[in-house]
Amino acid sequence: MTRPNLQIALDQDSLEDALGIVKQAGPEVDVVEAGTILQLQEGVKAVRCLRHMFPDKIVVSDTKCADAGGTVAKHSKDAGADWMTMICCATIPTMQAAKKELNDLQVELYGDWTWDQAKKWREIGIDQAVYHQSRDALLAGEVWGEKDLSVVKKLIDMGFKVSVTGGLTVDTLKLFKGVPVFTFIAGRAITGQDDPHAAAKALRDEITKYWG
Amino acid sequence: MTRPNLQIALDQDSLEDALGIVKQAGPEVDVVEAGTILQLQEGVKAVRCLRHMFPDKIVVSDTKCADAGGTVAKHSKDAGADWMTMICCATIPTMQAAKKELNDLQVELYGDWTWDQAKKWREIGIDQAVYHQSRDALLAGEVWGEKDLSVVKKLIDMGFKVSVTGGLTVDTLKLFKGVPVFTFIAGRAITGQDDPHAAAKALRDEITKYWG
Repeated sequence: MTRPNLQIALDQDSLEDALGIVKQAGPEVDVVEAGTILQLQEGVKAVRCLRHMFPDKIVVSDTKCADAGGTVAKHSKDAGADWMTMICCATIPTMQAAKKELNDLQVELYGDWTWDQAKKWREIGIDQAVYHQSRDALLAGEVWGEKDLSVVKKLIDMGFKVSVTGGLTVDTLKLFKGVPVFTFIAGRAITGQDDPHAAAKALRDEITKYWG
Repeated sequence: MTRPNLQIALDQDSLEDALGIVKQAGPEVDVVEAGTILQLQEGVKAVRCLRHMFPDKIVVSDTKCADAGGTVAKHSKDAGADWMTMICCATIPTMQAAKKELNDLQVELYGDWTWDQAKKWREIGIDQAVYHQSRDALLAGEVWGEKDLSVVKKLIDMGFKVSVTGGLTVDTLKLFKGVPVFTFIAGRAITGQDDPHAAAKALRDEITKYWG
């Protein structure tokens, strides 16, 4: 089984905070993400900074694009993004318009999406999905469990490369043992720690322990 | 019937372009919106600029927030926004978290939302909805019609103040005659014209003609 990627999600309020953290943790991760909060605060400059700081890593523009797919994707690509996120309730024409500009789209799964929709995303050639425990759902007390795992597995069976995110820690990664997760996305498990480099390394080591 | 508001959606690629346009058109509108494209490009500074330029108008932060509702809403409010948009597939806990920070939320209706969801939004006290012809759907040839109007009317019957948007022009406003639309949102019908002030005034005059 391929070793899952480790992705750092940067959702700081300021570019300065985000760049200070990612300079430390970046060397331990495969993918660096300009999170939605950060982009809404600071703009696409956040993506450009990550591209310049980490020319050899995968850069994600987490726009959660819902409309004007062509424009948003072009902006993300021009800034250096390799991947861009789309919200699951975006229409198929919006996703197609985005895909023409930036091929590697990730559908972010929130709320009441359906398997029929997922089938349509595959049909238009989208091969990445992000299974998301909502931050607010986590705050409301929901946790990772068998229900989540079965959805992740079914998405993988449909041909999606699946990223998982939302409250992941060194302790919860093992819940996914045996599942060919494509990417683990960690936010505060890295960015909220005193030593972001050590925190990223601990996650990386845990991934290696279970996926080799 | 109350006269509907006129809202300008600013979705330029740069703050300079957006501010140049809104300085001209702003005096003719009731509501000024920092669009998603603009905020993703330039950050929340766009909202702050609109607040300072138009202290007496309603300012909208069009984040299409999907997660981290509390944080995104706090940032929008701190920047001076009166209203903020949420994407319809955001979860109820996300909407509730946002509402604690910024009371006047607007749910943006994209894709396959349901009437059951709409009922839940009303139950948590959300009283604004944005009925959206997707830009990409318009590009794909879809047009305003009776189907759209019946949805708008049903939302109004449920107690929503409904904004409508997507390809509106001086010629299409009259399709809504007799419908108590809360706000007409115009983008390129104003921002894409040689004289944005005249374009905004023409829309305003057309609204007055049909709604008094």
